[in-house]
Amino acid sequence: MSKNSASQTEIPRNTGTVAIRWSQSALELLDQRLLPREEHWLTIEDAPGVARAIREMVVRGAPAIGISAAYGVALAARTADDGRWQRDVEAAIEELAASRPTAVNLFWALERMKGVLSECETREDGVLRLAAEAVAIHEEDLASNLTMADLALEAMDLQRPCSVLTHCNTGALATGGYGTALGVIRRLHERSLLKRVYADETRPWLQGARLTAWELMRDDIPVTLNAEGAAASLMARGDVKWVIVGADRITANGDVANKIGTYSLAVLARHHKVRFMVVAPSSTVDMAMETGDQIPIEERDGTELREMGGIRTAPEKVRVHNPVFDVTPAGLIDLIVTERGVVHSPNVAGMHNLFG
Amino acid sequence: MSKNSASQTEIPRNTGTVAIRWSQSALELLDQRLLPREEHWLTIEDAPGVARAIREMVVRGAPAIGISAAYGVALAARTADDGRWQRDVEAAIEELAASRPTAVNLFWALERMKGVLSECETREDGVLRLAAEAVAIHEEDLASNLTMADLALEAMDLQRPCSVLTHCNTGALATGGYGTALGVIRRLHERSLLKRVYADETRPWLQGARLTAWELMRDDIPVTLNAEGAAASLMARGDVKWVIVGADRITANGDVANKIGTYSLAVLARHHKVRFMVVAPSSTVDMAMETGDQIPIEERDGTELREMGGIRTAPEKVRVHNPVFDVTPAGLIDLIVTERGVVHSPNVAGMHNLFG
Repeated sequence: MSKNSASQTEIPRNTGTVAIRWSQSALELLDQRLLPREEHWLTIEDAPGVARAIREMVVRGAPAIGISAAYGVALAARTADDGRWQRDVEAAIEELAASRPTAVNLFWALERMKGVLSECETREDGVLRLAAEAVAIHEEDLASNLTMADLALEAMDLQRPCSVLTHCNTGALATGGYGTALGVIRRLHERSLLKRVYADETRPWLQGARLTAWELMRDDIPVTLNAEGAAASLMARGDVKWVIVGADRITANGDVANKIGTYSLAVLARHHKVRFMVVAPSSTVDMAMETGDQIPIEERDGTELREMGGIRTAPEKVRVHNPVFDVTPAGLIDLIVTERGVVHSPNVAGMHNLFG
Repeated sequence: MSKNSASQTEIPRNTGTVAIRWSQSALELLDQRLLPREEHWLTIEDAPGVARAIREMVVRGAPAIGISAAYGVALAARTADDGRWQRDVEAAIEELAASRPTAVNLFWALERMKGVLSECETREDGVLRLAAEAVAIHEEDLASNLTMADLALEAMDLQRPCSVLTHCNTGALATGGYGTALGVIRRLHERSLLKRVYADETRPWLQGARLTAWELMRDDIPVTLNAEGAAASLMARGDVKWVIVGADRITANGDVANKIGTYSLAVLARHHKVRFMVVAPSSTVDMAMETGDQIPIEERDGTELREMGGIRTAPEKVRVHNPVFDVTPAGLIDLIVTERGVVHSPNVAGMHNLFG
């Protein structure tokens, strides 16, 4: 367990903030459940530990989940029995795949790891090549964030600085570094095109309050926190020109599953003529799924709404509707930005052109 | 300090739940900051104590604030110096008027008390007549809630049970008893026309989680709690037929100031063809104000978003946008229900017909 010493990692970084470190024999994860109060790193040495960390939201954010799972597979090769190492790793892949149901990056990363696994002849070979593949997934994610930031700025074509609204956390903490939606916002700031980011606090898990505000303040990017309920009146005031969010899965027609509350922002943005952008690596795109209706939506325990930091804030036995994600139909989206390119006013044809 | 013994009150009740009791020499308020964990009553014996209770949200909800302030004036007459009792009461009225800026019921109730004050010749007379007027305001509020529930059901003209969504707390805890929007929902339940109430948890103060869920469960009305961010996907699912909310001020054109997040629901309701109803006594109507743009919107301390039950949930110094109310333009409202009648698709003419 170490604090903020990133000396062991091999991953290039473009921001001071990271949440995932790889040190050959272990995966180190910044425990995001404790932010912003405490920066505590967990050292995880086997795949079940990684699956648990994903399930319990030590690490969250679709790209970061995919990267962590890939490292989990690499760890499985290290801890496997020599005689049955491939079966051990396959079992680990299954356990990791069951950790969260909605984000497709998880399954995408595990498929890549499976491909490498099938080519490895010995466990020693597997240990090396699976680790190298996980590092490659991590590095490619960071690189794609930087590419997406450039593509988004080009597509926005801003003449003057503006304020934007974001939801959940899509920054360095949610990715291999830099961020998807928050990466675009970082780039706006670097180019002096950002007045202010409004960050939805993002109930129930408060990723906006706990993570986005923390990450942006660390990097001196002007941020104002608001409750989800205040987003509509903010838009009515005319301050916000763009809503910029990430994605957990994008289907073949351009529908987007993302953190609960995203769809609400898309409806509000359309009503107020605010533009709506989704930023996600192509690993988030699931062309095998026709529309958002088919995406499995994770429902988490009601305790997340009944309690807050261990303090009960609602009647103990009250029924709770706690979906983690919602689906924004393509028709409400102005831009989908991936590292492969930008889809304007997404639909089946536009998605097929880029990902078909 | 007593618990749940309502023996001293003179107010008729149609629900087991009350939050305001008058016992001649004191005002008893259920401390709503401690719900749902603890039912603790505060005994308040002077007007500054009532002003503080309003400011600190021991009591909240536009009608309940008005009623409490009226009792505060009655207490001022009791504690005043004989020689300068009218000036003392006038000073108390000023202090009470400054306790919250947005809800107009507060100013309306204080105006009524001022009218009575001007007719009282002696302090003894004032003590009696001001208390009687406060009790009358309290009783009339309860009666108007019952009337509004009937008028709303008539206007809804439901053929079968439906589910509804509500925001904040507008029930017995927010009024003289029964409730405004929640009164309509109670009546739907009594008439077997209610499948389920979805209650927005209502950040930052969690009135929906802490108060509405508590009140409805107490009265065996089926309630499901959701984060504000989940309201849009709930509507998209088609479950919710009506959004029913209260109001803190309604202007001459039918614009409605209500708890932050209400305007968001109105936009979402329109997008999903869900109907949108505002329920409030006529004391909430401010015909002297032309449009909602003129309503002063209270902004509360950012700590409400930076902390939760004393636990820090956001960076200590993060800037916060924390307006308590927003304004829903009349054009997004299907019905305004008051005890004087119902305004369909409110506008200047419709409002003038009923309140001109």
